[in-house]
Amino acid sequence: MDQRVLEAMLPYFTQLYGNASSVHTVGQEARYALDGARERVARVLNCRNREIVFTSGGTESDNAAIQGAATALEETGRHVITASTEHHAVLHACQVLENRGWEVTYLPVDDFGQVDPQQVYNAITNETTVVSVMYANNEIGTINPIADISAAVKTRAAEFNRTIVMHTDAVQAAGYLDLDVRKLGVDMLTLSGHKFYGPKGVGVLFIRRGVPFLPLITGGGQERERRSGTENVAGIVGLAVALELADSERDAIGARCLALRDRIIAEISRRIPNCVLNGHPTERLPNNVNFSFAGVEGEPVLLGLDLQGIAASSGSACSSGSLEPSHVLLALGQTADVARGSLRITLGKDNNDSQVDRLMDVLVGLVDDLRALPTLSGTAND
Amino acid sequence: MDQRVLEAMLPYFTQLYGNASSVHTVGQEARYALDGARERVARVLNCRNREIVFTSGGTESDNAAIQGAATALEETGRHVITASTEHHAVLHACQVLENRGWEVTYLPVDDFGQVDPQQVYNAITNETTVVSVMYANNEIGTINPIADISAAVKTRAAEFNRTIVMHTDAVQAAGYLDLDVRKLGVDMLTLSGHKFYGPKGVGVLFIRRGVPFLPLITGGGQERERRSGTENVAGIVGLAVALELADSERDAIGARCLALRDRIIAEISRRIPNCVLNGHPTERLPNNVNFSFAGVEGEPVLLGLDLQGIAASSGSACSSGSLEPSHVLLALGQTADVARGSLRITLGKDNNDSQVDRLMDVLVGLVDDLRALPTLSGTAND
Repeated sequence: MDQRVLEAMLPYFTQLYGNASSVHTVGQEARYALDGARERVARVLNCRNREIVFTSGGTESDNAAIQGAATALEETGRHVITASTEHHAVLHACQVLENRGWEVTYLPVDDFGQVDPQQVYNAITNETTVVSVMYANNEIGTINPIADISAAVKTRAAEFNRTIVMHTDAVQAAGYLDLDVRKLGVDMLTLSGHKFYGPKGVGVLFIRRGVPFLPLITGGGQERERRSGTENVAGIVGLAVALELADSERDAIGARCLALRDRIIAEISRRIPNCVLNGHPTERLPNNVNFSFAGVEGEPVLLGLDLQGIAASSGSACSSGSLEPSHVLLALGQTADVARGSLRITLGKDNNDSQVDRLMDVLVGLVDDLRALPTLSGTAND
Repeated sequence: MDQRVLEAMLPYFTQLYGNASSVHTVGQEARYALDGARERVARVLNCRNREIVFTSGGTESDNAAIQGAATALEETGRHVITASTEHHAVLHACQVLENRGWEVTYLPVDDFGQVDPQQVYNAITNETTVVSVMYANNEIGTINPIADISAAVKTRAAEFNRTIVMHTDAVQAAGYLDLDVRKLGVDMLTLSGHKFYGPKGVGVLFIRRGVPFLPLITGGGQERERRSGTENVAGIVGLAVALELADSERDAIGARCLALRDRIIAEISRRIPNCVLNGHPTERLPNNVNFSFAGVEGEPVLLGLDLQGIAASSGSACSSGSLEPSHVLLALGQTADVARGSLRITLGKDNNDSQVDRLMDVLVGLVDDLRALPTLSGTAND
């Protein structure tokens, strides 16, 4: 978390500790902070203040968006469309609907992980109520053409003369891509605080005015009846400050990451034989690198890097430790063996060239060593 | 929030910032903090570590508990029992089930706001799957005989030879009552961090081992598949430290609040004519005072107190500003007019006798003044 974010949050823990729903002055101070945070977030998203709903994070926002719109539109149809490379928060929210009788279409992606707007258009039926396609993939960094997908959804909705809600999980895009919801043409959009140097445990769900929605979490009626529960004032203030900073520093940080990213991709391709870049070569987040190395498992690479103080990932943090091959890489058409051997390197605003030097030296040696081990070669040839 | 809680949280914002699901060292440091927090909470609740699920707060826990158990047991019956004085988080979670075809029994309470275990027993049918009764009421402080209610549920469940899950919302009880889930005999229990000097935006749901449960928020499978989403490490650490402190200081703080509470109740009864103590005279939280004053609206009393720097409430923060009369007071059999005129005074560990002196002087003068106003007398006689 950014130090400036922490400083903005601090007063709301022990000094301005009011419940924002209370009518007394202590409560109204908290309410004022919430209003200010909402305005900041709305400005970055280019939407109305009241279209911003604060949640406990990206996973809750995804669940709330998909289930909330689908159940609100239940009478008009029970068909939802998403993509096979979505985050599990989206996929599992869809599965909950499936268990309750909805039909879900999981669209395939191309070899680079992109969803085709034409395929979205073709998949829409006169039962479709919700389309959810992620802005950028968390594992491979592939950026989807969200504006085109939204346009396809709106065109088809007009042709069928029905309401179809377009949602995008923009968790991984925040801080690197334009979050203007008008340009994107989306009806709902998910953000998560800790992805842009804000706090964990707080997120955003943008819900365009007029979009049918039933709340996932009900109770005291906070957030204009769309998300109940005493507001996490410090977390919300932190998220808003972080998003504003991320937005204002986006070009500079993005350019710096992009240079590092392209250097890593070029060096790995040159120095490590039999490797595959996963994801799109250009339509890709500036901070994402994802490679598979033939004959090498992901786990020992991660451990070897970690021993040298380098924190990397195979697939997503949410599913690491599970030993399941990445569903994203499987969706790209990779075999389970190759999918299990992927390495995801995510860059941030504090990374620099000398760290990349070190990463490359460690990684090249590590893959060499692992490939030389007889047991692992055995596994690779299975 | 307690300063000691803030200090425990601070390292997890900017230094130990890992994602607890990541396999690298930075992630494992966060995992270690989570494990420690879980152990601390489990010790206070006298349960197993893995029976603790961290959520985003009391409202989420209530929603997750009621919907999670009811949907998991859907095949065995669709009847839920709760009480008319519950928090809206419980009532609205039940209403969501009603909208989906469940039958819900809203038990009445006696004049002091207590639920009768025998009535719970009588309400159970061979369709009942969940009973949810709060430990202590947030508005009037009335404590329910949860151990007796749990025993009635278990007896009836055995007679019907079926699984019935007993949940209690203990949000308001934490810090003042014993949270030992074995003594309480409950299967599920809800806590909210900010009610015991912990952070906002984090809560607990205790789920006894073996209790059928489907998650409200799905995704990456965190919290052993019971609550997905990147864990709010700082918040969880803060909640655990706060709960441990609240537990160890419970007797001392409870005794101090009790003395102040009884002094306020005695003085109001003596110095302000035509007032009614709402809630139970003895089976009542040591920090809760709730009065109605005949012929006086709640709102001007709150504003008058606030002008003197005294933060009080009418009903709950969650519904203040709504102008609806308190559903809790209506459930006690009060008229809408009287219910609208209630004043809730909640004490905390930092309150003292000289503050009570001042509260009393301000309050007595305020009620006198308001009663002397011709328009308000007119309203009172409507």
